[in-house]
Amino acid sequence: MSTVTIDLGPRSYDIRIERGLLDDPSEINDWITGKQVFIVTNEIVAPLYLNRLKASIESDEIYELQLPDGEQTKSLESFAHIVDQMLSIPCDRSVTVIALGGGVIGDLAGFVAATYLRGVSFIQIPTTLLSQVDSSVGGKTGINHVRGKNLIGAFYQPQRVLIDIDTLATLEPRQFSSGLAEVIKYGLIADHELFCWLEHNIDAVRKLEPDAVEHIVTRSCANKSNIVEQDEREGGVRALLNLGHTFGHAIETATNYTSWLHGEAVATGIMMAAHMSKLCGWLRQQDCDRIESLLVRAGLPASPFSGISAEKMLDLMQIDKKVQDGQIRLILLRSVGTGAIVDQPDMKLLHETVEHYTAA
Amino acid sequence: MSTVTIDLGPRSYDIRIERGLLDDPSEINDWITGKQVFIVTNEIVAPLYLNRLKASIESDEIYELQLPDGEQTKSLESFAHIVDQMLSIPCDRSVTVIALGGGVIGDLAGFVAATYLRGVSFIQIPTTLLSQVDSSVGGKTGINHVRGKNLIGAFYQPQRVLIDIDTLATLEPRQFSSGLAEVIKYGLIADHELFCWLEHNIDAVRKLEPDAVEHIVTRSCANKSNIVEQDEREGGVRALLNLGHTFGHAIETATNYTSWLHGEAVATGIMMAAHMSKLCGWLRQQDCDRIESLLVRAGLPASPFSGISAEKMLDLMQIDKKVQDGQIRLILLRSVGTGAIVDQPDMKLLHETVEHYTAA
Repeated sequence: MSTVTIDLGPRSYDIRIERGLLDDPSEINDWITGKQVFIVTNEIVAPLYLNRLKASIESDEIYELQLPDGEQTKSLESFAHIVDQMLSIPCDRSVTVIALGGGVIGDLAGFVAATYLRGVSFIQIPTTLLSQVDSSVGGKTGINHVRGKNLIGAFYQPQRVLIDIDTLATLEPRQFSSGLAEVIKYGLIADHELFCWLEHNIDAVRKLEPDAVEHIVTRSCANKSNIVEQDEREGGVRALLNLGHTFGHAIETATNYTSWLHGEAVATGIMMAAHMSKLCGWLRQQDCDRIESLLVRAGLPASPFSGISAEKMLDLMQIDKKVQDGQIRLILLRSVGTGAIVDQPDMKLLHETVEHYTAA
Repeated sequence: MSTVTIDLGPRSYDIRIERGLLDDPSEINDWITGKQVFIVTNEIVAPLYLNRLKASIESDEIYELQLPDGEQTKSLESFAHIVDQMLSIPCDRSVTVIALGGGVIGDLAGFVAATYLRGVSFIQIPTTLLSQVDSSVGGKTGINHVRGKNLIGAFYQPQRVLIDIDTLATLEPRQFSSGLAEVIKYGLIADHELFCWLEHNIDAVRKLEPDAVEHIVTRSCANKSNIVEQDEREGGVRALLNLGHTFGHAIETATNYTSWLHGEAVATGIMMAAHMSKLCGWLRQQDCDRIESLLVRAGLPASPFSGISAEKMLDLMQIDKKVQDGQIRLILLRSVGTGAIVDQPDMKLLHETVEHYTAA
């Protein structure tokens, strides 16, 4: 059992990480404050875990909504649908919203919790590696817009995050690898030791050896917690967490969030950031090779790709949330283990990087 | 010139109250942090004040959106429309959203500011009495749902509130009276001196004598500020501000937000709360008469009404946000000048009150 505390004053909360948490009533009931519980989940996760979760909840009024799986669900329409359902019951402001699923469910249900009657209690139960190590931690909630990801949302902290690492056993290997992109990211921006540990243990991680999985989840949450505590609303250092994401979001948007998984786009984005860092004179070729090697061993794409033009990529990067006053902000690497926020990147090197990677 | 400071730590801000503020660049430009300004207003206010406001703003990139006047505009559709416009420009996260108009515009634009790219800068320029003394102060933002008012929203504080009391000169008298309902409310729940002052000066107020208007706006903002500072997210004492509102919202919902103005519904709701307080033995008949007399002199309805059944009223009160765990919460009056939060009201007295007022 590991616990990572996110210390945000009145909005502090614990992330609990353990096998079998779903079946432990003592871990959840203390965080349900009213009579009503509204569980948001999806059609893949529900058959696997919903009944087990419900059996652990002592409330007499448990409601549930199963949504289709996939990024398309993270829409204003789904948001309105959930709110309609909750109002038709009606759920009052003492309701606790529980997100049972991956990042799509967590971000969407979190945005509902943030805005239903101007905010109700919220518990995250992430069931994918990506959501366990990233999206469930730190209070970002939101939905997508046809013009880009997460363009509507709120910072809203949950009351508790419960991570049952046993749920990873049912995750498709491709999805598991997608989550590893974020784990590798923490190593690159702030935790050289984690990066080296991954180089030695990536095979044990991919075989889901429990100690290895608990280690990467805990270490990732601790890294993210450390950054979020310094900068809850992304005014400063939190931007480091976007390593690979400005490139990655452009890839996802260009392909309508269909052919690339988030972590796959981020992995390629990380390589693009590494490549540009090399052009800046910060990384050596052997650093880039190390990063590429670990990404590939983690089951992630890290090579130039086809199907998106350089112009399209650059255009989409301008709409990304990380743009400030018309200036692109990029996260690059000073070294393996040290990220850098670059507010006015050299546009020539950026074009060169994008052209290199879109040329396949 | 008056200034009321709302002290909420890192979310503190000033409310400036003066004649002619719209034309004073020094009052606004310090609060516009990026290059882009996006003004949300409506078709009534824009011809009167939009150009004057724009002339005071030094930014080169001023965008504007004029929406139809009226409560129907405070919808998820309008929200999506504003976000679509902002993304099509695109506005980045350094944009400042300015609400120029009444409560509908302020609540809607505030919810956009709270959620666009997870939150951007926000300035409130309320142009109606209702929004100057109530909705622009305290950070409540939101939109309506077919099932009720403000059912989706967020607590989000502006960077500044600019109240130019000269804008009240163009307000219809019926709308002005609607705002007076909230002013009278502050007197009733927390400021006996203000209530007595109003009894002596209500005619000067309705004639828009500048000193009288500045007095009621400043005193109202100070009262609201005092309560919001104690309870930003409505966990406790802030509920007092809902005097008349649980009844009033039910009236507005039953009539689809069309025939009653908000303040008119609140005024009638205040009388219902006063009547019930009398049934509880807290107010005397002469207190109720005083309240009714002031409401009527302010141009507000305070009598039993027709067209809504008692059953419908009671049913709609159950969905109101102020319901906790299935229990209605009402704000009643211990005396003229002292509100009381009543968590388990006597349902018999509530029925009696509703039946009395819906019997006309």
